[in-house]
Amino acid sequence: MEAYLDNSATTRCSKRVLQIVQQTMDIDYGNPSSLHTKGIDAERYVKDAAAKIAKTLKVAEKEIYFTSGGTESNNLALIGTAMANRRTGRRLVTTQIEHPSVRNAMAQLEESGFEVVCLPVDKDGILSLEALGKAVNDETILVSIMQVNNETGAIQPIQEAAAVVHERNPRTLIHVDAVQSYGKMRIYPKKLGIDMLSASGHKIHGPKGIGFLYIKDKTKIKPILFGGGQQSGMRSGTHNVPGIAGLGEAAAQAYENMEEKIEHLHFLRERFLDGVSQVEGIRVNSILECSAPHIVNISVSGVRSEVLLHALEEWGVYVSAGSACSSNHHTVSGTLSAMHVEPELLESAVRFSFSSTTQEEEIDYAIQRLSELVPKLRRYTRR
Amino acid sequence: MEAYLDNSATTRCSKRVLQIVQQTMDIDYGNPSSLHTKGIDAERYVKDAAAKIAKTLKVAEKEIYFTSGGTESNNLALIGTAMANRRTGRRLVTTQIEHPSVRNAMAQLEESGFEVVCLPVDKDGILSLEALGKAVNDETILVSIMQVNNETGAIQPIQEAAAVVHERNPRTLIHVDAVQSYGKMRIYPKKLGIDMLSASGHKIHGPKGIGFLYIKDKTKIKPILFGGGQQSGMRSGTHNVPGIAGLGEAAAQAYENMEEKIEHLHFLRERFLDGVSQVEGIRVNSILECSAPHIVNISVSGVRSEVLLHALEEWGVYVSAGSACSSNHHTVSGTLSAMHVEPELLESAVRFSFSSTTQEEEIDYAIQRLSELVPKLRRYTRR
Repeated sequence: MEAYLDNSATTRCSKRVLQIVQQTMDIDYGNPSSLHTKGIDAERYVKDAAAKIAKTLKVAEKEIYFTSGGTESNNLALIGTAMANRRTGRRLVTTQIEHPSVRNAMAQLEESGFEVVCLPVDKDGILSLEALGKAVNDETILVSIMQVNNETGAIQPIQEAAAVVHERNPRTLIHVDAVQSYGKMRIYPKKLGIDMLSASGHKIHGPKGIGFLYIKDKTKIKPILFGGGQQSGMRSGTHNVPGIAGLGEAAAQAYENMEEKIEHLHFLRERFLDGVSQVEGIRVNSILECSAPHIVNISVSGVRSEVLLHALEEWGVYVSAGSACSSNHHTVSGTLSAMHVEPELLESAVRFSFSSTTQEEEIDYAIQRLSELVPKLRRYTRR
Repeated sequence: MEAYLDNSATTRCSKRVLQIVQQTMDIDYGNPSSLHTKGIDAERYVKDAAAKIAKTLKVAEKEIYFTSGGTESNNLALIGTAMANRRTGRRLVTTQIEHPSVRNAMAQLEESGFEVVCLPVDKDGILSLEALGKAVNDETILVSIMQVNNETGAIQPIQEAAAVVHERNPRTLIHVDAVQSYGKMRIYPKKLGIDMLSASGHKIHGPKGIGFLYIKDKTKIKPILFGGGQQSGMRSGTHNVPGIAGLGEAAAQAYENMEEKIEHLHFLRERFLDGVSQVEGIRVNSILECSAPHIVNISVSGVRSEVLLHALEEWGVYVSAGSACSSNHHTVSGTLSAMHVEPELLESAVRFSFSSTTQEEEIDYAIQRLSELVPKLRRYTRR
């Protein structure tokens, strides 16, 4: 038996995605920049994918730009906006719990002379709207906030945050890193009042190496890659047609029967929490009232994260220590640190992440393994 | 019957590539940054691909960095080198016949305060080594030269150019855009004396949305995308495992029996040239003595490129007007302009590009169609 509970690191491609990827690699393999029908056929997949994604967000097709993934989407949003608006102001605002692709792009911009304000979060991992309001001034050109935290699942109040920002400065652009939320909840950028939104294919059963950035029409932003002028000059490079078509298919699939899928995720989380509540010494770090159901972060007192991770994988249970968003480095969780979680719990934090395809049997199996392994590992650690 | 003679725009994926892409999307779908075995299994594909590519170039595995394609590789080489070395000097040297991803990245750097020297080419489309030598001074941090031109197939004398550059300034870094040459000829960066080399998957029957940049060990270069620190921090973002594995497979396949493949390409070109020599009013723009055999650029006097392209595609013959490297815009060829080809021939230039998988029947069929269509179209144009 196997339980892949690391869906926030990456997901398995769906059959429908596989099929369209194969079709565009083998049959409709043209370059959309070609003027002949093979080019036009390939371009149709790109337009279809943009249309499918635009529909899920209730935005226009031309507001969807394809990138090589979440990291590039976040970099384009941040660096592209900063470069285009540096004459208006130099202040950028973000939070302490962002993904490295936001954090490190911000650090890079700070090096280039921008001022970066990094807001703290409360013990639940939620941004203070008051602090946000104070950070926004006439010089603030961009605010970037992650919608669902990749380590704990915490959901930020995006709509309220956007209102606070725009009350202070109506010209401030707002970017949302939706890599962990897109495809898992309904998101309407126009309703939220935001200008940019990043998403990634491989987190929603789509291909790796593909993502998109929603950019509201007329947003002032510059490209970060230069070349043949594809995608209205915003993102040069031959369209990754199989990736784009696969992402479009994954997006459409994710939003089919979404309410059922969300219900299923809640069911899985409840079952999982019921189970861990039977195991002594497990603390749940995710604050359930304000978290997405597909991510649960727990700490097992007395057992280091990596020890538990490797013990579980021997039984075919796959989870994450930290976030798996940094290359092979297990570093202590930035989000949990920002939440002021005690050091001992920090070092034993493990993330379980579910997908709509996760079966309840996988949850039961993981719980069974946890309840057997935890007492043994704890005894071993104490010796 | 169909004759796809637009292989320099993009190629059809090979069966072996398709297979490994499917395997890594469906079965070995892990994230190489994960600490568990699913991550380790996925990482193995990345290492294998790097090893396969490194072997074709006779370089070290750790000198191969995966990107989202040729455009990103070229941008990383140029912008990354410029940013890392701006305190050493501000002069960048390139040629007038580069791909837009080099030309426009250079333009961007010029805007940021770098001095860009753009060298002309002679009537054969070849760079003057004397002019190159004069352009390199103490301030020159980078020289970027395309190995095989995407429009005419012209091969630049890279090894000689590198020697000239290093005689003038041993510290000047040399980048080669090998998007149209990698997989089609033997290329050994150490022997050529170069520091960086760009290549793309979809030009060699590999996947779209993937490429690599060879960076010689200890080359001073900074990343252009920031995030989780994957690929030694040089290129953040979850590894595109299917793309990478597919690229590795395509590279290995391209270099299998390479001599036979090159011979076949020469055979195809000769057959094609024999054929066009029978059609009145066709001029061959590619200078055969210094061109790669897989690209032949011709002008059909009195027939505009797009007219011929669309007439041919109606018969299932797919070619390119210009280079198909710019999104849907048919602009007059930059390379042919730089070669001072007469305006009338410029407007009627069409590129035929072959692959090792191209059959002689496709050539014969294309020639047959050409010889029927050209007289008709010419008559039509003259009316």
